[in-house]
Amino acid sequence: MLRNTIDLMLYDWLQVEALTAHDRYADHSRETFSAVLDTAERIAAEKFAPFNRDADVNEPRLVDDRVVQPRCAHDAAAAFVESGMLSASQDYEMGGMQLPCVVEMAANVFFAKASVGLHGGNVLTTANANLLLTHGSERQRKVFAARELRGEWFGTMCLSEPQAGSALADILTRAVPDGVEFEADPLGARYRLTGNKMWISNGDHELSANIVHLVLAKIPGSDGCLPPGVRGISLFIVPKHLVDVDGNLTGERNDIAVAGLNHKLGHRGIPNTLLNFGEGRHPVQGAGGAIGYLVGQPGEGLKCMFHMMNEARIVIGLYASAIGYAGFEASFEYSRTRKQGRRLAATGKDVASPPVPIIEHADVRRMLLAQKAYSEGGLALGLYCARLVDQARLDAGVAANEAKVLLELLTPVAKSWASESCVEANSLAIQVLGGYGYTRDYPVEQFWRDNRLNMIHEGTHGIQALDLLARKVRLDGGRGLALLESRIRNAIRAGEASASTRPMAQALRTALDQLLHATAEAWADGDPEVATANATPYLQAFGHVVVAWLWLEMASVTLRVASTDSDEHGKLRTARYFFHYELPKIGAWLGVVAGRERTCLDAREECFVQ
Amino acid sequence: MLRNTIDLMLYDWLQVEALTAHDRYADHSRETFSAVLDTAERIAAEKFAPFNRDADVNEPRLVDDRVVQPRCAHDAAAAFVESGMLSASQDYEMGGMQLPCVVEMAANVFFAKASVGLHGGNVLTTANANLLLTHGSERQRKVFAARELRGEWFGTMCLSEPQAGSALADILTRAVPDGVEFEADPLGARYRLTGNKMWISNGDHELSANIVHLVLAKIPGSDGCLPPGVRGISLFIVPKHLVDVDGNLTGERNDIAVAGLNHKLGHRGIPNTLLNFGEGRHPVQGAGGAIGYLVGQPGEGLKCMFHMMNEARIVIGLYASAIGYAGFEASFEYSRTRKQGRRLAATGKDVASPPVPIIEHADVRRMLLAQKAYSEGGLALGLYCARLVDQARLDAGVAANEAKVLLELLTPVAKSWASESCVEANSLAIQVLGGYGYTRDYPVEQFWRDNRLNMIHEGTHGIQALDLLARKVRLDGGRGLALLESRIRNAIRAGEASASTRPMAQALRTALDQLLHATAEAWADGDPEVATANATPYLQAFGHVVVAWLWLEMASVTLRVASTDSDEHGKLRTARYFFHYELPKIGAWLGVVAGRERTCLDAREECFVQ
Repeated sequence: MLRNTIDLMLYDWLQVEALTAHDRYADHSRETFSAVLDTAERIAAEKFAPFNRDADVNEPRLVDDRVVQPRCAHDAAAAFVESGMLSASQDYEMGGMQLPCVVEMAANVFFAKASVGLHGGNVLTTANANLLLTHGSERQRKVFAARELRGEWFGTMCLSEPQAGSALADILTRAVPDGVEFEADPLGARYRLTGNKMWISNGDHELSANIVHLVLAKIPGSDGCLPPGVRGISLFIVPKHLVDVDGNLTGERNDIAVAGLNHKLGHRGIPNTLLNFGEGRHPVQGAGGAIGYLVGQPGEGLKCMFHMMNEARIVIGLYASAIGYAGFEASFEYSRTRKQGRRLAATGKDVASPPVPIIEHADVRRMLLAQKAYSEGGLALGLYCARLVDQARLDAGVAANEAKVLLELLTPVAKSWASESCVEANSLAIQVLGGYGYTRDYPVEQFWRDNRLNMIHEGTHGIQALDLLARKVRLDGGRGLALLESRIRNAIRAGEASASTRPMAQALRTALDQLLHATAEAWADGDPEVATANATPYLQAFGHVVVAWLWLEMASVTLRVASTDSDEHGKLRTARYFFHYELPKIGAWLGVVAGRERTCLDAREECFVQ
Repeated sequence: MLRNTIDLMLYDWLQVEALTAHDRYADHSRETFSAVLDTAERIAAEKFAPFNRDADVNEPRLVDDRVVQPRCAHDAAAAFVESGMLSASQDYEMGGMQLPCVVEMAANVFFAKASVGLHGGNVLTTANANLLLTHGSERQRKVFAARELRGEWFGTMCLSEPQAGSALADILTRAVPDGVEFEADPLGARYRLTGNKMWISNGDHELSANIVHLVLAKIPGSDGCLPPGVRGISLFIVPKHLVDVDGNLTGERNDIAVAGLNHKLGHRGIPNTLLNFGEGRHPVQGAGGAIGYLVGQPGEGLKCMFHMMNEARIVIGLYASAIGYAGFEASFEYSRTRKQGRRLAATGKDVASPPVPIIEHADVRRMLLAQKAYSEGGLALGLYCARLVDQARLDAGVAANEAKVLLELLTPVAKSWASESCVEANSLAIQVLGGYGYTRDYPVEQFWRDNRLNMIHEGTHGIQALDLLARKVRLDGGRGLALLESRIRNAIRAGEASASTRPMAQALRTALDQLLHATAEAWADGDPEVATANATPYLQAFGHVVVAWLWLEMASVTLRVASTDSDEHGKLRTARYFFHYELPKIGAWLGVVAGRERTCLDAREECFVQ
């Protein structure tokens, strides 16, 4: 089921084959892309899906100083490394396959659908290596990134701290030069780091021979104080085990201690850790302080990290959609086989007739269509963004620049819309299964728990909403929004050409106008606190308009390629579901945005106790 | 916090003191009511809240044939029995306090907020006894109900079966006369029952000396076949341990076996069982078949059971609201103490200023106001229904009849609206806590899991929606809906008298008209399958209109009683939140209802795989 949809999106809609006209992808074809998807689907089905519950029940444990995980975690990691997926989009010379980003991300969707707990950490290694390939020195690329891409070492990103959360300006991890000749180290300027990092996924484990932490820290000024704000943040490579200039393990451990594992609601397959850097538990050459190597220039840490985070956000949107789809599949299967009740007929119910499969009930179909609309909508948005990544990398000039600008605008939406909608999708999957769905004997309750993280990590929902309304729609005089508008209007024009899609195209035009109006009204008096007071409802409405546009595109593509009876095709019906049941919701969300509604902004603390 | 709100609702809004004019409540006063609430609050704080996580982590286990629960479950049950709450609303002669139903239910809210896992089962015993007091013989009342009300024995309701779920017409449990003189048993006509009952909360445990199962079963006809439909269902008392005519345990066990415990997502404090009746594991006098005593007449089982279920549905709405409120309290406390980020000012952020408590951020306030609006809205609706229960019982003639009719209409709404809204409230509580909210170190993730059951048990969301749109709004020529309309219009008129509530009153008038229009349009062509194809969106909109009305009432009451600055009072602000952010959502929901939208109804199975 999912494969057909991904094929439609990649080949018929996003025209991924056109990429093979570029030199970089000259060896590729639909056949090679499909072979990668086949492999991903197969390994996911063999090594991931059957162990999803196992990874949940047997979450990582701290035994003495070691993080212990079940056998299935080791097997899944090994199978993933073996598949070459860690470096799928990298250059041949780095051992990669030079796959387009969009194909790589599509392949990863199968793993995430099978078990986000066993797969979710893999993207950290790829993203970590990608960052080093972009911002690291040649030796850092060779020593660290190359080993990560081969799966010898795994990577992390260490941003948050217990006291700071999303507010990176307030991090307290400190990096001081390690000796007078600290700048002469071939692996990069060498510092000693001290501080605590919270919410570190894959922060410790025994799945790889070493762990490459990318750590944000501040270098104190001459007064010994940490520089304020995000401009004082630098980025460091801090390996768990120390290495020589060629990357051989020296046998010495770095001064990093696992202070504890976080015990989570879901996503339990991935160890999530509080790491103490440099507290002296594992002194290096007799002294406390974790050894770290500067990446890029001091003070540019956040800039480097955002490169990694932006791709991670698209991936999260895709993974949220994958989990949404997993629930859709499970509840669809259940609804076809579970018999209960009878259809309501004009003549009443015939109790002597046998019960029907519950998919016969309109409300069950509603819950299935909603799940399909959410999860495939999120998938379409994520893959559209991934295609923009490819375009931004490949094309020169205007097209690449447009892709970059549009990508910046859509990234918070791709992350957030899918995360929120697909938790709801998973809730509907539980509802289709009824009491059974509420038990751990069926997979849907786990999907719901697993998916709930996606609105939180890599920047919470509220942070994404601020990013969208306070920054992205206004960047560069609103160029991203104008570009988006023009693409949506193109789709509207195309949609109006067919009777099947005309009502959707017309509804989308109205919705787009509402969204643009609300955007302008939000900022009408220029006060950012008032403008963004309803940023979250704005984000929800923005996402619904964008996904309505993509559903219109899906519908148009299907009309073009489906052989017969295309008007009754599932993609058309799901698109109509989205336009009838979902898109009208933007009225309520945009009402408060356009009205610069201050009910929440002005609420005094005492009103909550009254 | 909750206590103030409950006091406002009981005394200032629902005029509970007026009940003391009735003979039945003549001994009562605001002081006695408040003493009960005080006691409930205290016991909940001492014996329930501190053990909520313990009950979750140490869920019931089956050890050989026994259901083993942690110490805290025994202590909480004993404290609850000791409080007299099981019989709070019963006659003095039954050992009760003759409390109004609305006060009893309000007191139970404190227990549910503290730990639904430790408290949720208690209502089964009270409801079971209530049913027997209404439909049982004098001896059944004395032997079974009286002991339940004293907390010596606990009760269950056994409706569902593995193959039947909500479709009670299809139950297969069979009851055959036990011997030729089966009708002569003083405890009631004696049958032997065989069959499997699923999802039985408190189906087995060691918290009480006996368990009184109320079991739905069918008596085969002379052809040996079970009668079709719900009219063939009868009700039986099936005690776990057999008793003599005076209720003394005979020492013999009934033929009931625990076939398994269900391992749930939440609500883990309550054992949930699959019970096999009459399979011969515990033969009675040498023969298989569980001994059961008929309650009421054969074929009237469902009628008797609905009495119990309707009150249980109101209770579920209240408990869902209580869990919603628990999350609100936890996230409010967190938001006042957790410091992170800075307010957005026109001049940008001052990174040198200290971080602010996160309640300073508009989006956090939005999440708190939403939780308050949902949980207090559900609470108001549940208590309003409980007040109708009192009115229906006490008053003679028109007023009682009106209360009954209105109660029938509002019961599915009270159950469903609170269940759906307060799962969302709990999700927002997680979001306020961010990563911490996703860990089991904080209580909010458990609230979210616990609350998710409420949309499923006692009739799923979809079943309630059908009940509302297919039956309740049309019963008796739409009398219930007309009554509701008239009460809402009274509130609108009253609300228009004050400048503070006038905009809400006007918005409510428009919303009510929309709802009534959609109701008529749904049924415009009289086809029940088409009319109810969008029953769930209808239920959602219906609930939002009803709760908007109650928020208007809350606002009006507050303006009347609050001493100073009432326009800035929390109740006013939350009411405004509901009208600005929530009520406008009905447009999208009612659109498909009024349009008799067939997208879901007509979806073919193959469209889901396309």
